[in-house]
Amino acid sequence: MTLQDLLDPVIDASWKGFPHHSAPLRRSAIGAQGWNVLRGDLPLPLAVIRRDALAGNLQWMQGFAASHGVGLAPHGKTTMSPQLFRRQLDAGAWGLTFATVTQLRAGVEAGARRCLIANQVFQAVDLQGIDDMKRAHSGLRVAFLVDSLAQLELIERWHAAAANPQPMELLLEIGVDGARTGCRSHEQALALAQRVRASSAAKLVGIECYEGLGATGRSDADTAYADALMQRVREIATACDEQQLFETDEILLTAGGSAIFDLVADHLKMKLSRPVQGLLRSGCYVTHDHGTYHRFMNTVAARIGCGHGLHAAMEVWAAVQSCPEPGLAILSVGKRDISYDLELPLPIAFCRPGKTSPTASPADWKIGGLNDQHAYLRGSGPEHQALRVGDLVALGISHPCTTFDKWRWMPVVDDQFNVCDAIVTCF
Amino acid sequence: MTLQDLLDPVIDASWKGFPHHSAPLRRSAIGAQGWNVLRGDLPLPLAVIRRDALAGNLQWMQGFAASHGVGLAPHGKTTMSPQLFRRQLDAGAWGLTFATVTQLRAGVEAGARRCLIANQVFQAVDLQGIDDMKRAHSGLRVAFLVDSLAQLELIERWHAAAANPQPMELLLEIGVDGARTGCRSHEQALALAQRVRASSAAKLVGIECYEGLGATGRSDADTAYADALMQRVREIATACDEQQLFETDEILLTAGGSAIFDLVADHLKMKLSRPVQGLLRSGCYVTHDHGTYHRFMNTVAARIGCGHGLHAAMEVWAAVQSCPEPGLAILSVGKRDISYDLELPLPIAFCRPGKTSPTASPADWKIGGLNDQHAYLRGSGPEHQALRVGDLVALGISHPCTTFDKWRWMPVVDDQFNVCDAIVTCF
Repeated sequence: MTLQDLLDPVIDASWKGFPHHSAPLRRSAIGAQGWNVLRGDLPLPLAVIRRDALAGNLQWMQGFAASHGVGLAPHGKTTMSPQLFRRQLDAGAWGLTFATVTQLRAGVEAGARRCLIANQVFQAVDLQGIDDMKRAHSGLRVAFLVDSLAQLELIERWHAAAANPQPMELLLEIGVDGARTGCRSHEQALALAQRVRASSAAKLVGIECYEGLGATGRSDADTAYADALMQRVREIATACDEQQLFETDEILLTAGGSAIFDLVADHLKMKLSRPVQGLLRSGCYVTHDHGTYHRFMNTVAARIGCGHGLHAAMEVWAAVQSCPEPGLAILSVGKRDISYDLELPLPIAFCRPGKTSPTASPADWKIGGLNDQHAYLRGSGPEHQALRVGDLVALGISHPCTTFDKWRWMPVVDDQFNVCDAIVTCF
Repeated sequence: MTLQDLLDPVIDASWKGFPHHSAPLRRSAIGAQGWNVLRGDLPLPLAVIRRDALAGNLQWMQGFAASHGVGLAPHGKTTMSPQLFRRQLDAGAWGLTFATVTQLRAGVEAGARRCLIANQVFQAVDLQGIDDMKRAHSGLRVAFLVDSLAQLELIERWHAAAANPQPMELLLEIGVDGARTGCRSHEQALALAQRVRASSAAKLVGIECYEGLGATGRSDADTAYADALMQRVREIATACDEQQLFETDEILLTAGGSAIFDLVADHLKMKLSRPVQGLLRSGCYVTHDHGTYHRFMNTVAARIGCGHGLHAAMEVWAAVQSCPEPGLAILSVGKRDISYDLELPLPIAFCRPGKTSPTASPADWKIGGLNDQHAYLRGSGPEHQALRVGDLVALGISHPCTTFDKWRWMPVVDDQFNVCDAIVTCF
């Protein structure tokens, strides 16, 4: 694949949402077509990104990290969009985070040279993939998580069999009892770090944890949870430093999803015997949402007094295809098009064709269910009664990741819903 | 896009599951690479299709339709795979069904010439897309659903403004109170059919319903539901025929998802004043599953005495990445990779690297939850205690549609998990 194909691929009418009548276009040519979503120029359903909210989110999160003296390595799994990776790097991100080696490849091709894989890597095919990528891109750094001796032994086995392998850069993962991956105890973590130090297949470059699974939205509980976890992380970092287990000029200390990132940021600054680079890995901030992360952000805002710094930048537009019974309108959007893993989509606006600006949805509108290709929009008030086949309805989402992965491209729109740009995904 | 690009595209390491070290390959070249899933030749997670189960399902369902004297128009939304579309047509399918005009395009490019859209179409951009496709492919037939006068008026508005438009072929949709789309009453349906007859923008070519939303898995209730719905469909078909509202040589009568298709098949045969083509639209049969459709098939088998005619042809393989606590193994697979909308994935087999055949999972293994990129495999028995980082675990799915749409390609494997072919999707 050429870099042009990655950043500026040809999109055609086989891509959901692309106008059927349009000739294939380079992504970069889409903004000049004069398309407008409300005018019906594109088939629905259609996921769109609001240009100004996106730009604001990129800037706000980078500013947050900078003001707390930490770097940002946004999680690329959220969007898997080379264009958004470039925007994040251009905004000042330290690097990018991924979950798999295939994801890493897209980020490296998009220009990232400092990468984290916030996951265990242990399959030979994946380890070799990282090694090959580091050879192909001089200066590329890739650090991934380790949380068990069994994993380290698989790395060593690969290393022993590989041709001229480089040592892998590892982040020691600290986990929580009852949660997911990560060392559960100080002793276990330290023993593993010592074992990494003794290995020629790997070197320890930092400590990692993920606080997001413990987030509840209640500030007292979330603060206590984050404080306790980060205290453990810092104690282990201190012990590793005292025992000279880090084999790197700069120690990486990383945490941070998109729910309670403010509660871990300050803990990522430490004085050790060599410089410490704190890194937040938030991914969902880039488009934010209308649901789960919106509510988390309200509590962040209350804690840090910033106002609601992030704004929902993603909407999925659909049309009313049937009004079969009072109180029920069926929309042309379903599980193939929009997130439903954390909660159902949220009606946010509607617009009669021919109008140039939408109206906010009334509070009585709810999505009562989704099928593969349909949504059930229920409501009781006069606006719902007035809905007609053909009317446009915008849905907000809860959890950006699981809407991004349902689209191969998305138009970027201005406040009048003119298509002014486009992004591509590579899930 | 060329037909070669559609049926035989170039796949490269940016596609999830493709080996990082491999040069880009035409899809048709993948079967000759000598890759084996259990040997670790491909990065995990990886969705695979079992060759023999797929072939058996294609044959069994076609045989079922033929033995009931109806045609098969499999729903393409399930797989959106041009290769599988071709296999279905080659197996004898009457045509294909889709949910959107973009999906239709893929089917037409793959060779379908008799197509249903089991959905309302009403946006001008979509109507024009159908009209253009019919012009580009002589002999192409596309029939879609109508269930309201408001929708018909939008079709007429498009027709009045279009250049030399052809009339649209419509299927009158019969719906159920409290369910989704479709005319609720005999009178409403007949009035709409009369209105279509009077319109030069459209012609009535058949009657449609979808019984699958009402399926419970209890044979008595499902039989009563299907009988009542199909009785309404037949009464409306008879009335439309008597009033000469059909404008077609052959009347289409279509129903049938993948849950209780046996309860509607025989109702699709009718004697009217002109020939009737009954059509089942099942989509999920092609890979079947280990969950919802497996259970529905058990009840189908009990009713028709056929044995379990369909077999699960899709599995998602992952690796154990961490065993952080007794009873918990974390797998390298998550919401981005596997269905979770009807129920969580089901452990079906496991295999230590180096072994050439997997062992069936014990009954105590359960997937307790999914994150974006992780699965929680819980168990209490000795096999779970013996799990190690690097072990392979196969998960069965519930609902094929929502696993297909998470993969751009899938290897087809033989019983030894040798990759012998590959399919591509175009969601």
